[in-house]
Amino acid sequence: MRDAYIIGAGQTLFGAMPDESYRSLFTQAFETAKNNVPAGIDNKDVDEAVVGSLGVGGRQLGLSGPAATEHAGLHGIPSSRIENACAASGYAVRQAVQAVKSGMADIAIGGGVELMTDLSADVTKYWLGVSGETEWERLTGTTFSGVYAQMASAYLNAYDATTEHLSMVAVKNHANGAQNPKAHLGFECSVADAANAPTVADPLTLYHCCPTSDGAAVAIVAGEDVVAEYTDDPIRVAGVGAASERVGLFERDSYTAISSSETAAQQAYRQAGVGPKELDFAEVHDCFAIAELLAYEDLGFCGRGKASHLLDNGVTDPDGDLPVNTSGGLKSKGHPIGATGAGQITEAFKQLSGEAGDRQVTEPRYGLTHNVGGSGGSAVVHVLEREVAR
Amino acid sequence: MRDAYIIGAGQTLFGAMPDESYRSLFTQAFETAKNNVPAGIDNKDVDEAVVGSLGVGGRQLGLSGPAATEHAGLHGIPSSRIENACAASGYAVRQAVQAVKSGMADIAIGGGVELMTDLSADVTKYWLGVSGETEWERLTGTTFSGVYAQMASAYLNAYDATTEHLSMVAVKNHANGAQNPKAHLGFECSVADAANAPTVADPLTLYHCCPTSDGAAVAIVAGEDVVAEYTDDPIRVAGVGAASERVGLFERDSYTAISSSETAAQQAYRQAGVGPKELDFAEVHDCFAIAELLAYEDLGFCGRGKASHLLDNGVTDPDGDLPVNTSGGLKSKGHPIGATGAGQITEAFKQLSGEAGDRQVTEPRYGLTHNVGGSGGSAVVHVLEREVAR
Repeated sequence: MRDAYIIGAGQTLFGAMPDESYRSLFTQAFETAKNNVPAGIDNKDVDEAVVGSLGVGGRQLGLSGPAATEHAGLHGIPSSRIENACAASGYAVRQAVQAVKSGMADIAIGGGVELMTDLSADVTKYWLGVSGETEWERLTGTTFSGVYAQMASAYLNAYDATTEHLSMVAVKNHANGAQNPKAHLGFECSVADAANAPTVADPLTLYHCCPTSDGAAVAIVAGEDVVAEYTDDPIRVAGVGAASERVGLFERDSYTAISSSETAAQQAYRQAGVGPKELDFAEVHDCFAIAELLAYEDLGFCGRGKASHLLDNGVTDPDGDLPVNTSGGLKSKGHPIGATGAGQITEAFKQLSGEAGDRQVTEPRYGLTHNVGGSGGSAVVHVLEREVAR
Repeated sequence: MRDAYIIGAGQTLFGAMPDESYRSLFTQAFETAKNNVPAGIDNKDVDEAVVGSLGVGGRQLGLSGPAATEHAGLHGIPSSRIENACAASGYAVRQAVQAVKSGMADIAIGGGVELMTDLSADVTKYWLGVSGETEWERLTGTTFSGVYAQMASAYLNAYDATTEHLSMVAVKNHANGAQNPKAHLGFECSVADAANAPTVADPLTLYHCCPTSDGAAVAIVAGEDVVAEYTDDPIRVAGVGAASERVGLFERDSYTAISSSETAAQQAYRQAGVGPKELDFAEVHDCFAIAELLAYEDLGFCGRGKASHLLDNGVTDPDGDLPVNTSGGLKSKGHPIGATGAGQITEAFKQLSGEAGDRQVTEPRYGLTHNVGGSGGSAVVHVLEREVAR
């Protein structure tokens, strides 16, 4: 199987940018990604594009893939939109990897974009709701906060974790995001701030929920036989896994684990020939604080019910054994639905390239990204490897 | 590059089925596709799924890929929705081919679904409109009929074709569709019927436009090293090409050619090592009658401006040198947006397998499918080959 490499990745600022368009954001992210390719790259080198987006707002719901890449100066190439709710661009990067591995492209880009803040809050809520299970969740009035609140309640009931652990996720990720100039909510917060914030869906407070963000991110993927033209510090896609789970939470075997994340991680580890112990950092899908605890367990960072111990012991802090969400995560960096997965790849690329600035992890070799759609209806995991030792 | 094969393909009835759901339709198509695999296939053999859909109506806009495959009994596998307007499932099949060629899947399904008739006509019109260019086409009141009418006017002005040739496309495709038990409008019509029908957008009459249909279709793709387990009459994906074009018609170099179709066809022919002369039949994207004339030229069936000569000489009739749209095409078989591309693959699979019943072409070896998104913002072309000589 032909190896695939990330040769560049970049993102826009994540935040409220209602005067931008999905096209202007995508183009900015693509230009930033190109600038991050060590030896540079021309548009004409790109053979294929995959654009992840939920299409919030429905402005250009059809053909928004070709419309975005046309604006970015990629006229003529195969371009499509992939949708997997919040995992859209994790899947887009995976699809770019597939395009390269298949031999049908030497260079493919996988990215994503979402523009959400130019709508009224009610309209945005509708567009987010349509990623939940329709008949028995959305139409009965259950929002995503409600679904994750059910998972949080079940988890806190099953194990010895407390709401303080949910707040510790927020505190850690806000502290990380405060070091990230691209973060939407780049400020620190305390456990007390999180605990005392208004309840969104019990037990989740405002600080246990990610914001509604605009943004775009793009990763540029190259085949092993062309990678040397673009960089002498290649970041290999060592493993990639993806899976689905029942879309409705109420139909699943467990409320305290997301089987799609587990399956995707196992695939990615197997392909990469490494396990969680070899990871130097991870970007995980923390749309709600409980999701980060579930991720620790689904991705094998610890056993079932032990996620709170990692937080108690600072294991996932920036100076811990396995820093998680150095970017600030969805919680602080922001969560522009279609851009999130490629944004995680961007952070991993920067970390592995030694370009993560104030939040740089020491000489990482392996990094993992974990992107979830909806409440776990889909998940995709990448393990990236820096091949050149420092 | 690993070869990919279509081992089975199937579709639902195309038509008005407002009591069905996108899930029930997708499942029916998948079951039919499985039944068409000569040696049968189990759900557990399927490694990956790609579901094409515009998501008309927005019922389950996010995660409708996993939601459809879950209902079809494919719980757990990577499943995503791909959107490329009316070319969604042509791209879905292409992506299944990529998955197989990449080695990441041995068996992948590419399909599509659309449910359109359970909405009021105005709502459906909105959902179709969002596949047009938004700012300068849809929001100025231009519908797809309007865009294709502009192309038709330009074409009739540039060349010696007449509106009668548009009607001849309708007559031919309705005659073909009348032989297809799965067709939405399975009745014959005359040139006079088409000419005298109400004008939709001058010069296009009602009979020059495809209907609004519900339906689903699925193709099952297998890698060369596993294909023998499923069939001894394998249909090879000899070539596949895809391309994009500017989404807004007004931004293009030509109104009388669709460059994305041209590029996609050239790629597919190059990969297959054959040209239009070797084709035994083709399913082309005739959303409006003018589109079939453009397709003849974009796909190299004849020179520029000569499409009407093919019609005049019966070349694309069922008993002509190159039968086109034996299924009835979008015009008569119907056009459930997300299902159309995989529906074309289904017809090609049936023809090449000798299972096309009353509309069977004599001993075909090569067949082409051509699926267009919007007014040409994207296009995808497959060349399929029956490897076993009869």
